[in-house]
Amino acid sequence: MTTAGSEILRPTAAILAVGDELVLGEKLDTNSMWLADRIGALGLRVTRHQTVGDDNDAIAGDIERLARCNSVVVVGGGLGPTADDLTRHALAMALERLTDQPNALVEDPDALADIERFYQTAGRAMPPANRVQALRPTSARCLSNAHGTAPGLLASPQVDGQRRVIACLPGPPREMKPMFESLVATTLASLPGACAAPLHVVQVFGLGESDLAGRIEPLMRRGNNPAVGTTASSGLVTCRVRPEPGEPVRGPYRATTLEDAVVEALLEIERLADGHVVGRASTSLAGTVLHDAGTHGLTLATAESCTGGLVGQLLSSEAGASRSFLGGWITYSNEMKVRELGVDPSMLNTFGAVSRQVAEAMARGASERSGADIGLSITGIAGPDGGTPEKPVGTVWIGCHRRGGDPLVRCFRFVGDRQSIRLWSAQTALFLGLKAIRGQGVPKLLREVMDA
Amino acid sequence: MTTAGSEILRPTAAILAVGDELVLGEKLDTNSMWLADRIGALGLRVTRHQTVGDDNDAIAGDIERLARCNSVVVVGGGLGPTADDLTRHALAMALERLTDQPNALVEDPDALADIERFYQTAGRAMPPANRVQALRPTSARCLSNAHGTAPGLLASPQVDGQRRVIACLPGPPREMKPMFESLVATTLASLPGACAAPLHVVQVFGLGESDLAGRIEPLMRRGNNPAVGTTASSGLVTCRVRPEPGEPVRGPYRATTLEDAVVEALLEIERLADGHVVGRASTSLAGTVLHDAGTHGLTLATAESCTGGLVGQLLSSEAGASRSFLGGWITYSNEMKVRELGVDPSMLNTFGAVSRQVAEAMARGASERSGADIGLSITGIAGPDGGTPEKPVGTVWIGCHRRGGDPLVRCFRFVGDRQSIRLWSAQTALFLGLKAIRGQGVPKLLREVMDA
Repeated sequence: MTTAGSEILRPTAAILAVGDELVLGEKLDTNSMWLADRIGALGLRVTRHQTVGDDNDAIAGDIERLARCNSVVVVGGGLGPTADDLTRHALAMALERLTDQPNALVEDPDALADIERFYQTAGRAMPPANRVQALRPTSARCLSNAHGTAPGLLASPQVDGQRRVIACLPGPPREMKPMFESLVATTLASLPGACAAPLHVVQVFGLGESDLAGRIEPLMRRGNNPAVGTTASSGLVTCRVRPEPGEPVRGPYRATTLEDAVVEALLEIERLADGHVVGRASTSLAGTVLHDAGTHGLTLATAESCTGGLVGQLLSSEAGASRSFLGGWITYSNEMKVRELGVDPSMLNTFGAVSRQVAEAMARGASERSGADIGLSITGIAGPDGGTPEKPVGTVWIGCHRRGGDPLVRCFRFVGDRQSIRLWSAQTALFLGLKAIRGQGVPKLLREVMDA
Repeated sequence: MTTAGSEILRPTAAILAVGDELVLGEKLDTNSMWLADRIGALGLRVTRHQTVGDDNDAIAGDIERLARCNSVVVVGGGLGPTADDLTRHALAMALERLTDQPNALVEDPDALADIERFYQTAGRAMPPANRVQALRPTSARCLSNAHGTAPGLLASPQVDGQRRVIACLPGPPREMKPMFESLVATTLASLPGACAAPLHVVQVFGLGESDLAGRIEPLMRRGNNPAVGTTASSGLVTCRVRPEPGEPVRGPYRATTLEDAVVEALLEIERLADGHVVGRASTSLAGTVLHDAGTHGLTLATAESCTGGLVGQLLSSEAGASRSFLGGWITYSNEMKVRELGVDPSMLNTFGAVSRQVAEAMARGASERSGADIGLSITGIAGPDGGTPEKPVGTVWIGCHRRGGDPLVRCFRFVGDRQSIRLWSAQTALFLGLKAIRGQGVPKLLREVMDA
């Protein structure tokens, strides 16, 4: 990412997550991903993440080692009031080793006042245990916490003649994120060499990642600038186009400027992915569906069997979903399919609940009963039980009824476990909805069964 | 976790995740948590996780360093067929450095045949690029992959006179997990000193983690054996009781054997958490609800507004949910609340959609219209918009209608962002359902507003 050609190298950053619960696999670390994304957007290069338990020597050792070979170290967790919150002590120890100077913990009167005020606002007295949270290494300063008791810590030691930034943030995301944004981000963005590289994205649905990678292989070669990479998740492939500012264009581009080469890459991906293109936003598929429904003035309703509310959940997790999403039915039982969506009982008997006919009737029922322009339906076998030789686990019928249009019903055979099958089903239904909103045909999708 | 008193120390393990998409924060790493949990359950002690990008030197350096101070290193990712899949080369390099012996990559004929067979089964010819996946360091062996093309790699070098195990697994969880279970787990469990410490759990709902920690503080002190720790997620606090086998009982226990001390800890937590106890399973809250509904022969239905299907999604994500979960309604719009659940329109006008009256009517409607014994309802303001001074963002009414019983309706003021408010709402509704199934009263819950 950096070459001898640049005058100043992009600063590097490492992320250290602290906590026994993380190391032992009791809790999923989502902070490090969030931090990496944000730090990258500020123009630094993230080199690694590490996770250690609540062990003073391990934390101090990691801070020291990471600070020796990175411009920035961001530490998450270990700032609570209990005996296993050791980041304060470990930072002091690491700073002493890095600078060869004493760096004892001292009580910060402003931080203490902040903590006392936090409890006062909640109508309680500060428990004595929390006083320890006002400690900071002599050379560090406290970062005030608007959403909790744990102040952060920020140190800027000189290491081998170069300035380093070490920021320690509280573990709870609700406290960590605002603290990073308001008190750390500006410091990082102003480091010499930090250069925010705009990230451009094309999202593609229902095309295998390796299939797509084959189509755009020249763009994806290592060393290209802009670089192109893909990640896939439940049918949605995100192609990222990432220019390295200050470097020349390298790769199969006709364009001679980086800006033009980015556009060239985006257009080429869209051309080769064709009918599978979702768009250039990096939002969720549900977010794109709601955005397009809004611009087209269309409304949606859902009828879900094996996904049990997952499509509704994905749609309603977007702020402002109520403008286009009217609601839906979770018709897990056959009785509810008949009574609530008007599915013909004889249809259930003849073709079974997992069938083209029932998927179509469910989508129509959802649209007609809710008054929505578009009804989406899912009926399938998510497993692990319930499969038959004719309809193995993973068989899912997905329907899309657009008022005044022909119904669209497709059959899929998804793979993986129950969660995977459900998520692929929900995402595929959303993609059918998106194409209906746009008035576009739907190409053959990944895992689709053509002869069903 | 280990002391001089044990004859053989518990073997330690480190986890290394490989991939630019992980380091850059483009993709969430869930493998490391899963591996840590499984490796811990096999009786090893996980010391750290690390994440590096697709860089040969960085991967090789990390494998080498981790293998020097851990018995086991499990590497995830970087085994694909493309130019940025470098784990094979990095492992060879690390093995050369660790053993001071050449360890060139060689093609494994069985692995190659496996890959060719995989494509054959899919009705395609193996692309030439995939041939590289059959390479392995001379001293390593391939682990066959039942769910993809990337074979794993297993090496057992002697380092400083001690045997190490280095396992490289593919990145996709669907391939990684079965390979770990079938081809790596037994090797790890049979390492000298590996001693599976049974993990015991008490789940508690609606009690603040710090509140609970205060109540059980003597049990949670560092150095206790069994040790007690807590983690919290959306209202559910999991208390883990973890004995260290072969060590004496330490802490506030009356019991003199580890087995008895575990039971003593569990009973003490249950006594102090009282009406908030969910149970001793480490399943999801939805799983416990379905389990208890099953044993009581009761059925459930849902009526969701601001959670938009999330409760249904949580219930239906459990295998076999259809035995007790009949289905539900996502009544995002007022029209659907009236038409589908029989909510009185004048009630909506008088009290608003977010009100005790509407929550109660929705729960009753869900139960009566579906025929379910228990109807759960949620109506609230998940934000970020839609709040008022009287009903700020986070205000959520949750109802539980049990046929023949008094309706239970509670008001909450949840904090955090939209997702957090929705998840707390869904979990709280499930807890109300659980108490209704058990015929138990509900204590005051975290974030509950008593005077609403």
